[in-house]
Amino acid sequence: MKKILLFAFAAMMAVGAGAQELANFTRGAQIVSPEVKGDSVTFRLNANYATVVNLYGNWMANYSDVVPLTKGANGVWEVTIAAPEPEIYTYNFIVDGVNVNDPVNYMVQRDGTRYLNMLFVPGERSANYNETAHRGTVSYKWYDSSILGINRRLTVYTPYGYETSNKKYPVLYLLHGAGGDEEAWSSMGRAAQILDNLIEQGKAVPMIVVMPNGNPGQQAANIMGLPTSNVDFRAPENQNAYVRSLVEEIVPFIEKNYRAIPKKASRAIAGLSMGGGHTFAASTLYPDKFDYICPLSAGARESPELDGQLQGIKKAGYKLYWIGCGTADFAYAGNQVLDAALTRNGMQHTFFQSSGGHEWKNWRLYLNTFSQLLFK
Amino acid sequence: MKKILLFAFAAMMAVGAGAQELANFTRGAQIVSPEVKGDSVTFRLNANYATVVNLYGNWMANYSDVVPLTKGANGVWEVTIAAPEPEIYTYNFIVDGVNVNDPVNYMVQRDGTRYLNMLFVPGERSANYNETAHRGTVSYKWYDSSILGINRRLTVYTPYGYETSNKKYPVLYLLHGAGGDEEAWSSMGRAAQILDNLIEQGKAVPMIVVMPNGNPGQQAANIMGLPTSNVDFRAPENQNAYVRSLVEEIVPFIEKNYRAIPKKASRAIAGLSMGGGHTFAASTLYPDKFDYICPLSAGARESPELDGQLQGIKKAGYKLYWIGCGTADFAYAGNQVLDAALTRNGMQHTFFQSSGGHEWKNWRLYLNTFSQLLFK
Repeated sequence: MKKILLFAFAAMMAVGAGAQELANFTRGAQIVSPEVKGDSVTFRLNANYATVVNLYGNWMANYSDVVPLTKGANGVWEVTIAAPEPEIYTYNFIVDGVNVNDPVNYMVQRDGTRYLNMLFVPGERSANYNETAHRGTVSYKWYDSSILGINRRLTVYTPYGYETSNKKYPVLYLLHGAGGDEEAWSSMGRAAQILDNLIEQGKAVPMIVVMPNGNPGQQAANIMGLPTSNVDFRAPENQNAYVRSLVEEIVPFIEKNYRAIPKKASRAIAGLSMGGGHTFAASTLYPDKFDYICPLSAGARESPELDGQLQGIKKAGYKLYWIGCGTADFAYAGNQVLDAALTRNGMQHTFFQSSGGHEWKNWRLYLNTFSQLLFK
Repeated sequence: MKKILLFAFAAMMAVGAGAQELANFTRGAQIVSPEVKGDSVTFRLNANYATVVNLYGNWMANYSDVVPLTKGANGVWEVTIAAPEPEIYTYNFIVDGVNVNDPVNYMVQRDGTRYLNMLFVPGERSANYNETAHRGTVSYKWYDSSILGINRRLTVYTPYGYETSNKKYPVLYLLHGAGGDEEAWSSMGRAAQILDNLIEQGKAVPMIVVMPNGNPGQQAANIMGLPTSNVDFRAPENQNAYVRSLVEEIVPFIEKNYRAIPKKASRAIAGLSMGGGHTFAASTLYPDKFDYICPLSAGARESPELDGQLQGIKKAGYKLYWIGCGTADFAYAGNQVLDAALTRNGMQHTFFQSSGGHEWKNWRLYLNTFSQLLFK
């Protein structure tokens, strides 16, 4: 037996000519990037023939900002900067004008059609974004939508111990923004890690988290390579098609296929940006469905219908109305409108404000905050 | 309601200054790459400041081969080549010496620590690698290994209809090679798509597919950012630790947590390269566990123990012994050894030979072939 395994190992180490797909070929020198040391981070790129290498990171103040790297004698470009505050960031290099991922950093998040290198700066704020000991299951499931006319993919988080507990669980429906898909919250949003940590610490109730695809014409994330529907979902008659499919199809599908508690008191809905719009629409159109309502970085606009919509929710009753927005977010004014409307309608709510803009560092923070308040 | 949604949409379209993470920013012109047209493929890269842009694709004969792109007047580099035969390939650009992914191609496979752009050439051979109508669920689950001393992640495919069928299913344990991890078969290997297609066509029996992590020191794929174990799994006393954990821990875990048929006749084991070594070891050490044994691109080496090992399997009985290897694979000689040893021990088996080397195009083909023979 030992000999067989040793043979297999030796064979893998051999470099064959022709089509031999071995593990992790690399061209060029082995370097470390990014390297977080104390209060600084060093980025490195092996690029002997490049003329200009720049770094862009989403902690920079403007999208057009870059930091230049300097070429060393060995062809490795390098720059050391002050570490941004503890959080998860994304970055890339720009080599002679071309966006390049850091080839030695395998920590990658996908945002829509872009693959972005992760920079994890550890600290109190980002502690729950780490993996922890007791981890739930993340599943990619398909369901049929007759409202949208297609088979569609969604992501489901079930908490640690779900399979063998025989218990029923409450459900959080967690919705992404424009350009995102059913993997956005589990990739950029670290939803599984946040829930694992909070549940393990006893700060959140064990719950199922359902993360659907909010683009009504898509069967699944673009990366699955599936054709999109040719229905015009912006046509007036289809305006709320996705929200209807969410409440009338996804909710029953989950309650049939998972041990979910099929009650209003055990359903929460939250979403960011466009998903905050979906959250607002779902809670308004179906006031008897969700006791916990959390639109994030979305807000509302003054309209003749707004008070009536909120009164519908008030009349049906709810346990939590929680809105979150960054003070530099372009949606901040809309959140002030919603906050004021909730107040003038005599509706108890929380307006959680953070620094920063329309960005994942805020959405992770909001999930890490409001999920502790659900189902209690 | 309509107004609220329109507002959210408009807000998303606005480009704010500062930290506003909007969907799918791109720098530069919108181009299409790769573009498969008839018998040719065109690759394009917007790189106005680059000096040399090359293309590497894994269909090329040698790893050092590249094809140069030509710069057009608009700063877009381009090359058109004859399409390789229908299959899935990976490629990247090399811009002034730096490996660069194609920024407009969101079809990406991860192989270990590398993210590789996909080129899908449609045709009969690759038809089952496409998505189909009835799709199973892919789940990422964690289990405790006391043999390896860590909590570990595995990937589980459950077939379409599993959740509501109340049936029990046979299980294929499908193992990756060196440098791979628990996502290798579902990413590079298209395992979910292949099984979905074959089951839908009635060519394969509905089955559960379990894809564990075969690196005994790893909790999960590197991309999860988890520390590895500090146990030396190459030490003699740990030589078969992973295989023991596979049979003594993972198999019972699956049979407890899923509706799996807990019988030898309903268990298959298959693996590529290092995973073929694991397959050989598991079938030899535990001859009463698996009725279907499929080592791929692995083989064996002549040794004094080989006949005795195979006789143990023969004595215990089995239903299928299926080995697959490319004629240009560096493991081909070892497969000839195993083929001859099975023959001289009077053991019925199939030696499936294909052109090509130690590469995923073969492993997808093998899965698409042998999985039709399981549990029948």
